[in-house]
Amino acid sequence: MKIIIINGPNLNLLGTREKSIYGDESFEGYLEKLKGTFTEVDLSYYQSNVEGELINKLHEVGFDYDGIIFNGGGYTHTSVAISDAIAAIKTPVVEVHISNIHAREEFRHLSLITKECAGMITGFGLKGYEMALGYLTSKT
Amino acid sequence: MKIIIINGPNLNLLGTREKSIYGDESFEGYLEKLKGTFTEVDLSYYQSNVEGELINKLHEVGFDYDGIIFNGGGYTHTSVAISDAIAAIKTPVVEVHISNIHAREEFRHLSLITKECAGMITGFGLKGYEMALGYLTSKT
Amino acid sequence: MKIIIINGPNLNLLGTREKSIYGDESFEGYLEKLKGTFTEVDLSYYQSNVEGELINKLHEVGFDYDGIIFNGGGYTHTSVAISDAIAAIKTPVVEVHISNIHAREEFRHLSLITKECAGMITGFGLKGYEMALGYLTSKT
Amino acid sequence: MKIIIINGPNLNLLGTREKSIYGDESFEGYLEKLKGTFTEVDLSYYQSNVEGELINKLHEVGFDYDGIIFNGGGYTHTSVAISDAIAAIKTPVVEVHISNIHAREEFRHLSLITKECAGMITGFGLKGYEMALGYLTSKT
Amino acid sequence: MKIIIINGPNLNLLGTREKSIYGDESFEGYLEKLKGTFTEVDLSYYQSNVEGELINKLHEVGFDYDGIIFNGGGYTHTSVAISDAIAAIKTPVVEVHISNIHAREEFRHLSLITKECAGMITGFGLKGYEMALGYLTSKT
Amino acid sequence: MKIIIINGPNLNLLGTREKSIYGDESFEGYLEKLKGTFTEVDLSYYQSNVEGELINKLHEVGFDYDGIIFNGGGYTHTSVAISDAIAAIKTPVVEVHISNIHAREEFRHLSLITKECAGMITGFGLKGYEMALGYLTSKT
Amino acid sequence: MKIIIINGPNLNLLGTREKSIYGDESFEGYLEKLKGTFTEVDLSYYQSNVEGELINKLHEVGFDYDGIIFNGGGYTHTSVAISDAIAAIKTPVVEVHISNIHAREEFRHLSLITKECAGMITGFGLKGYEMALGYLTSKT
Amino acid sequence: MKIIIINGPNLNLLGTREKSIYGDESFEGYLEKLKGTFTEVDLSYYQSNVEGELINKLHEVGFDYDGIIFNGGGYTHTSVAISDAIAAIKTPVVEVHISNIHAREEFRHLSLITKECAGMITGFGLKGYEMALGYLTSKT
Amino acid sequence: MKIIIINGPNLNLLGTREKSIYGDESFEGYLEKLKGTFTEVDLSYYQSNVEGELINKLHEVGFDYDGIIFNGGGYTHTSVAISDAIAAIKTPVVEVHISNIHAREEFRHLSLITKECAGMITGFGLKGYEMALGYLTSKT
Amino acid sequence: MKIIIINGPNLNLLGTREKSIYGDESFEGYLEKLKGTFTEVDLSYYQSNVEGELINKLHEVGFDYDGIIFNGGGYTHTSVAISDAIAAIKTPVVEVHISNIHAREEFRHLSLITKECAGMITGFGLKGYEMALGYLTSKT
Amino acid sequence: MKIIIINGPNLNLLGTREKSIYGDESFEGYLEKLKGTFTEVDLSYYQSNVEGELINKLHEVGFDYDGIIFNGGGYTHTSVAISDAIAAIKTPVVEVHISNIHAREEFRHLSLITKECAGMITGFGLKGYEMALGYLTSKT
Amino acid sequence: MKIIIINGPNLNLLGTREKSIYGDESFEGYLEKLKGTFTEVDLSYYQSNVEGELINKLHEVGFDYDGIIFNGGGYTHTSVAISDAIAAIKTPVVEVHISNIHAREEFRHLSLITKECAGMITGFGLKGYEMALGYLTSKT
Repeated sequence: MKIIIINGPNLNLLGTREKSIYGDESFEGYLEKLKGTFTEVDLSYYQSNVEGELINKLHEVGFDYDGIIFNGGGYTHTSVAISDAIAAIKTPVVEVHISNIHAREEFRHLSLITKECAGMITGFGLKGYEMALGYLTSKT
Repeated sequence: MKIIIINGPNLNLLGTREKSIYGDESFEGYLEKLKGTFTEVDLSYYQSNVEGELINKLHEVGFDYDGIIFNGGGYTHTSVAISDAIAAIKTPVVEVHISNIHAREEFRHLSLITKECAGMITGFGLKGYEMALGYLTSKT
Repeated sequence: MKIIIINGPNLNLLGTREKSIYGDESFEGYLEKLKGTFTEVDLSYYQSNVEGELINKLHEVGFDYDGIIFNGGGYTHTSVAISDAIAAIKTPVVEVHISNIHAREEFRHLSLITKECAGMITGFGLKGYEMALGYLTSKT
Repeated sequence: MKIIIINGPNLNLLGTREKSIYGDESFEGYLEKLKGTFTEVDLSYYQSNVEGELINKLHEVGFDYDGIIFNGGGYTHTSVAISDAIAAIKTPVVEVHISNIHAREEFRHLSLITKECAGMITGFGLKGYEMALGYLTSKT
Repeated sequence: MKIIIINGPNLNLLGTREKSIYGDESFEGYLEKLKGTFTEVDLSYYQSNVEGELINKLHEVGFDYDGIIFNGGGYTHTSVAISDAIAAIKTPVVEVHISNIHAREEFRHLSLITKECAGMITGFGLKGYEMALGYLTSKT
Repeated sequence: MKIIIINGPNLNLLGTREKSIYGDESFEGYLEKLKGTFTEVDLSYYQSNVEGELINKLHEVGFDYDGIIFNGGGYTHTSVAISDAIAAIKTPVVEVHISNIHAREEFRHLSLITKECAGMITGFGLKGYEMALGYLTSKT
Repeated sequence: MKIIIINGPNLNLLGTREKSIYGDESFEGYLEKLKGTFTEVDLSYYQSNVEGELINKLHEVGFDYDGIIFNGGGYTHTSVAISDAIAAIKTPVVEVHISNIHAREEFRHLSLITKECAGMITGFGLKGYEMALGYLTSKT
Repeated sequence: MKIIIINGPNLNLLGTREKSIYGDESFEGYLEKLKGTFTEVDLSYYQSNVEGELINKLHEVGFDYDGIIFNGGGYTHTSVAISDAIAAIKTPVVEVHISNIHAREEFRHLSLITKECAGMITGFGLKGYEMALGYLTSKT
Repeated sequence: MKIIIINGPNLNLLGTREKSIYGDESFEGYLEKLKGTFTEVDLSYYQSNVEGELINKLHEVGFDYDGIIFNGGGYTHTSVAISDAIAAIKTPVVEVHISNIHAREEFRHLSLITKECAGMITGFGLKGYEMALGYLTSKT
Repeated sequence: MKIIIINGPNLNLLGTREKSIYGDESFEGYLEKLKGTFTEVDLSYYQSNVEGELINKLHEVGFDYDGIIFNGGGYTHTSVAISDAIAAIKTPVVEVHISNIHAREEFRHLSLITKECAGMITGFGLKGYEMALGYLTSKT
Repeated sequence: MKIIIINGPNLNLLGTREKSIYGDESFEGYLEKLKGTFTEVDLSYYQSNVEGELINKLHEVGFDYDGIIFNGGGYTHTSVAISDAIAAIKTPVVEVHISNIHAREEFRHLSLITKECAGMITGFGLKGYEMALGYLTSKT
Repeated sequence: MKIIIINGPNLNLLGTREKSIYGDESFEGYLEKLKGTFTEVDLSYYQSNVEGELINKLHEVGFDYDGIIFNGGGYTHTSVAISDAIAAIKTPVVEVHISNIHAREEFRHLSLITKECAGMITGFGLKGYEMALGYLTSKT
């Protein structure tokens, strides 16, 4: 079972940036733990700050992977192009946000992407990725 | 560990109503499965179509339960009073929606409640309740 | 043929309240006249000021009655939950308003409910209920 | 008793146009049936696609007819001038819409005309005209 | 000096319609008085309820008359086409409203036409036409 | 002189809930003090979290009590039905808010109820109820 | 007959400021011409850049003058207080704007003042003051 | 192959009106050139300033012509009735605008008609009609 | 104990102006009564129609008085500068409105000032000032 | 004559993606046909999913090519930066959309780019590119 | 070289007011330092809380000074009249804000004045005035 | 002292593009002058049209440089991701715009970025960069 986590802009800073919002665990450390838990999954990871590279990656994996876990960061609220990319591919996408986007600034309440995803998980910290993996691995 | 699932208006019809949106499994059947999976949890269930009774129940359980899984149904988008109730209690609340509320009518995109909850899960069908339970039982 | 008239908040005051808007006939008196005219109909009546009790009643009658005449009063403009209840049941619902809601304050111009009903009648006073009954009894 | 039905733009196509919305009965055939039912009424009919001609007709009949049944079609949502014409005349006007305008596109939810009419009937198909006639013939 | 007064929809009812707003003088009687006062002007008059006929008349007189006094009635607030017609012609246009449009309903506060006119006069009753004539005859 | 204080949703938690906003005095204790101060008043108290029960109570007391002091809690901002109930009764209603609703979230700035009340008092803590009582007992 | 012209902010610069908009005639020169034309009028003039001084002047003259011609300049679009002052006085007020405010920036299209005035004249240059005087002297 | 060009309000002035926007070629001259280029097409032409007459013409040709090229002029932005007419007929409609409507005033950016047309062409001057003809003649 | 009442624009006309809204008692007469009731208070009074003079007065008294009762009149809805002044001073400010601002025009529903005040009282006529005094004198 | 077609995000999937919207012809195949038809044109092609690379390409070709045919995909509705790039270059740009963007979701109705282009073509499928080429090759 | 700094409402409190926003340096002390740095400038200073007096001062210095540094305080967001005054004068105006107005409440994000100024500087504390002086003294 | 100037999309065209807005000096030439003036600063420069590359650069320099001068070009008004990047880094950022963004189109008035910067400078041409450097070098 092939699943990829794709993280958008600024999420490369995870663990160093605004710790009150995102916590201080680095994503790389967290990823190792996830792999330990979901040993049946071939789990890969991609991060980019470039909107178009996120689209490229969605196209690349979107027709033969079994699941995509996507955190669009700031592009979540502004990118019609990423939303179109998710609509165009076949692999189910689970949207994850680390912080509770509805408890932050108003412009973060609207996601342009959710309507094209299987579902969305927001506010549970890094555990949200684990919940998404749990969903993707058990849904069949 | 005491956790309660509270469902709002019309969710008593689950399994009979608009099957294209909510599926055809009855909630009672699903609940039994959940109890089988989470045997360490003292799991209870409450449903009401009355906004104020949902508030009463939130007050009743909100100071000594270990978790609340809340699906406000149609009140999600209109009830300041329920949002205030969640803010007033101590027990962490996880908001769940069975359908993907961002893929339905526009008035369902805004939840007045999410900002007061630990987090929100939308679009994963009944499995969303299981994901919420998973979160609440593992977060400590 | 089983038909029910369901009236929402404040309509229990009919005949005593703001006579310039609603006239001074009591609903009970009017109901007797209706029964005299539509002798072939098993006509019942329900009124509640509680949003959730209106939903309970809609669920109760919504799968075997032949018609529902519904005046949501003030909930007309604010209740997603009642609108969802009407969408979930099988019995056709005719929405009635005694006064012309488009000739009153702007917040009364929008009904959240009409889109889920067979149709809507507004502005004809108590006669609107009779028109609704006429429609339901002749439409087959 | 003199009553006129006035239909606005595109309603000359009734019975040929978008049958899923308006049904496939021609208005002329329906009119004959109405006349058979309401034999005490001197019932006339007028249709025009020209906004100003509808106003001309409203002026012509609006001071000595006993009732006007008006379906403004697309002008319903855009014409201040027709709304002013209805306000200026003496004959009571009943607004009718064949389809349920609140279940269609959002721009059809707002009628500029209703506030000047006695009342409005929407969603009951051609039967709406009969309901309007019933109201006008019995209201005294 | 050739000047024309063009009145839009419902203004043929002047003197009979909603007297609290427009007063009870007929426009024809008023016109005779105006001709008596402005004897040096070749003053003509046109009224139509049809938007396109108002445009036709504006085209007809708009290249050789010395002035147009225009009261668009209800089309004032909805007609881009009339606004375009005024922009396209050469004769200066003075917009007149009998009632004070800013003291009436909000949808009457916005005129789509004024920006293409020399100026606008509102609220002075029929005297507004005389003020417009005074302006057009003295401005050279 | 009969006066009633009616408190809406979540106000049963007063003294335990969000103390930074509402202070830590329980309403029951405060009520005793009020009775001591206004000995000439037959002062009663009602609280409910159910919107429709608040309407029921308003109907019950609204035709023979001398005054109602009403704090609608979260329903203040969403309930057309309560606003209609206040409009329908005869007893003067004074709206009270413990916190300064204009210094909190924007959705709390708009009250649907105030326009039907004699007046509104906001921001003075529990003392607002005393000010309302002072008004009602001295206004004749 | 006592009439006063009151000009608001920046209109003291008339004749020197933005000539493409307001022309290059000074207001003082123009005033002398007006007095020559309307010899039967006791015509006075006041200008201030201070909103409250305009209100003071309106109060001072607003109960015994026969007419006020008012050009609020930039306060036209922002001053509730001046609008209240005009509503509070007895003397009829004619609002004048030199330029066509509907042909300028959008924020100049809305006047908060017009609804409390007898009427409004916009776009005719300084001649607008003369038209206002003509109205005030002839309206009885 | 029967194709008709239908032009709306003010387009009869083409070649004389606002040349900076529409150029100075008359439409009649242009039409002759088009006929010379598309000799296989039976090309007719209709222009009216009356909204309802445009609807009449659309009805008349809309069931047996092979294509309609429609420039609604100012009605483009205000006419629900024309949009309904295009939806009701069978012949494909290509919307053309001579100027680039998105480079002009904001109220010209929204077309109520495009959604019911095959497609839209804007900004290419009179050549837009030729492009529309090219599309209609080659699309089979 | 030093307390000042500061009244804004047009409130100098109290007792003469729009009596249906503000009643016919002059403020000066009322002030004497207040002083008789609150003999322990050194009560002063200031009124100005000039926004900046109200700010000057707020600065002057805002650091050593014990309370300010402020009725901003029309500036209530437009003045960021007064709101800033209240935020900058130390003395608690109680906002008072004589009429019920939520029962008047919509632009009077929003106060820019309330959020910086201790609280707000609206709709109780002149008695509102007495209630404010009662609050300020008893709150310690 | 040098002309380039530049396609934006997700258009690399053409022929595989959402066939109900875009059809199933691959763009490469289509391009060959175009070259066969327009043999006098040196036609090149560029596609990128990266907003900034589209800007780079516009800069590169925008000063010496004879024409650019641009389909911005999802960036059409969100990119001020691309709009600025088109404004900055000298080569005329024709905007093309394959589907009818006004018949899709509302957020696709607004193009930030059109106002800087020569014109726009929407809804004609891949044929839109051919129409654009026809325009660019014949406009001199 | 003659330059004046004009400060608007509440800026007389600088150094005493809300220190977390504006710092605790008094403006007078700061002014002395500025004069020491820019010895070639004849630097004057004016402050008023009255909108109209700020306009008077702008008129007074606006035709022969070499530069104006203007901080409109709260009037920045509400004064069309000050904006008009800046447009009417000849001297270049540099707008300065001490705090970062875009990091404060939303109503402070919009300045009505900036569009008429040479430029705007916000967020650099009192140093903003020095930057403005640096610009004005070096720009020739 | 290490400071970098980062320019966003289209600013590579500076000196060739729309000279009426940005002037005709090339940025490279200007940069040399700046280095000559601020010899104590290690001044570097970066430009990209790619949103994500701007974020990459902000991350790269944002933890050890002493200052960043940032002109986001068109991304200023649309990029939540860049705004997040500035919030995440430690180095103070000064936002600069060459033209006065408040004197251009309305969509340029809102910057998503300013609230995360130390301050913003707009309208002073290339001199704005110098002012920013002056601020950064003197603020300690």
